[in-house]
Amino acid sequence: MLKLCRISKAVGKRAMSSVEIRKAREGSLGPEIVILRLSHRRERDKRITTHVALTARAFGASGIVYSGDEDKKLEEKIMDVVARWGGPFFIRYEPDWRAFIRRWKAGGGFVCHLTMYGLHIDDCMGFVPRDRPILVVVGSEKVPREVYGLADLNMAIGHQPHSEVAALAIFLDRFFGGSELRREFEGAKLKIEPRERGKKIIKLVGDI
Amino acid sequence: MLKLCRISKAVGKRAMSSVEIRKAREGSLGPEIVILRLSHRRERDKRITTHVALTARAFGASGIVYSGDEDKKLEEKIMDVVARWGGPFFIRYEPDWRAFIRRWKAGGGFVCHLTMYGLHIDDCMGFVPRDRPILVVVGSEKVPREVYGLADLNMAIGHQPHSEVAALAIFLDRFFGGSELRREFEGAKLKIEPRERGKKIIKLVGDI
Repeated sequence: MLKLCRISKAVGKRAMSSVEIRKAREGSLGPEIVILRLSHRRERDKRITTHVALTARAFGASGIVYSGDEDKKLEEKIMDVVARWGGPFFIRYEPDWRAFIRRWKAGGGFVCHLTMYGLHIDDCMGFVPRDRPILVVVGSEKVPREVYGLADLNMAIGHQPHSEVAALAIFLDRFFGGSELRREFEGAKLKIEPRERGKKIIKLVGDI
Repeated sequence: MLKLCRISKAVGKRAMSSVEIRKAREGSLGPEIVILRLSHRRERDKRITTHVALTARAFGASGIVYSGDEDKKLEEKIMDVVARWGGPFFIRYEPDWRAFIRRWKAGGGFVCHLTMYGLHIDDCMGFVPRDRPILVVVGSEKVPREVYGLADLNMAIGHQPHSEVAALAIFLDRFFGGSELRREFEGAKLKIEPRERGKKIIKLVGDI
């Protein structure tokens, strides 16, 4: 119950409803993980943020909160994937990321910022707790210095320039030990049947 | 020597020079891996393809070949990263991806296509040879059906929609067993000193 309260306090000014909390916890692989995507720019970042959000969902996070420009089209696109491929997964806009991070910490959550300047993932993955909700912060090109101080851990997925999408995928894959890629999604209308060649999609329920 | 000939035949109509081959092999982590990015669209994909290319470099591939629109700005951007952060790494445009894949196979190379419709990574990673050059094919939104037939292996990084950037990162991370994230890059002018907080970049040689 304590954990649920923490998640509830941490996720937004508006407390999550019990349905949202239940949805966010059902089918979870372990500790609750939420992504915070900083400084989204509606035009410039629309595809990268979409990839960050879809990677978050596919690799076992409960949801994504983003700051910068509010972007209803982005939210619709992600929720359309959730409607067809299943959940639970949420996306939510947060205008004040500083306050959001502070609330997350005040609610007992852990904050892990992915940055090429941080400690190597293999040197610090053990510092990430398994019994507290985790906020994974991924920036855009310029990350305000303040983030480095607010984070409990600044973790580098290698120290080379690459991609926040790649960094997030590696973090989640290592954190969940690969189990996230076998997860079944609830309420899915579509499912893939793996094939050596070609494509096979199974329609599970109703119209798509 | 056989392996060098294979790489040479496979990479392009124009044979690689001995300097290119040497560069592509120096500092490599294991078998040669080259990425083929299909159907690049200059405007729409410029950032995603940049992320694919930077992820390829940071995670141990020797280079990337792309088809679709030729994009000199993309090439300059990637080679600018190589100039500052080190290599070896190449980017090259290939107008005829079918012929390129056929040449790769004719030269003894293996072709692994990353697709959500394929076999789960954990069920087929063992099929990827360790003694042949590997071409990893990553598509854009629509991948021509022909690719599924040309590939030696269609591999799914999970069966959910997400991102070619994430898929490539996971493939390379699993293939190299994480060692790619400790690799030293040759000729780097910049290097990061890992820190718990903030940023530290070391200038290694000359002007940046």
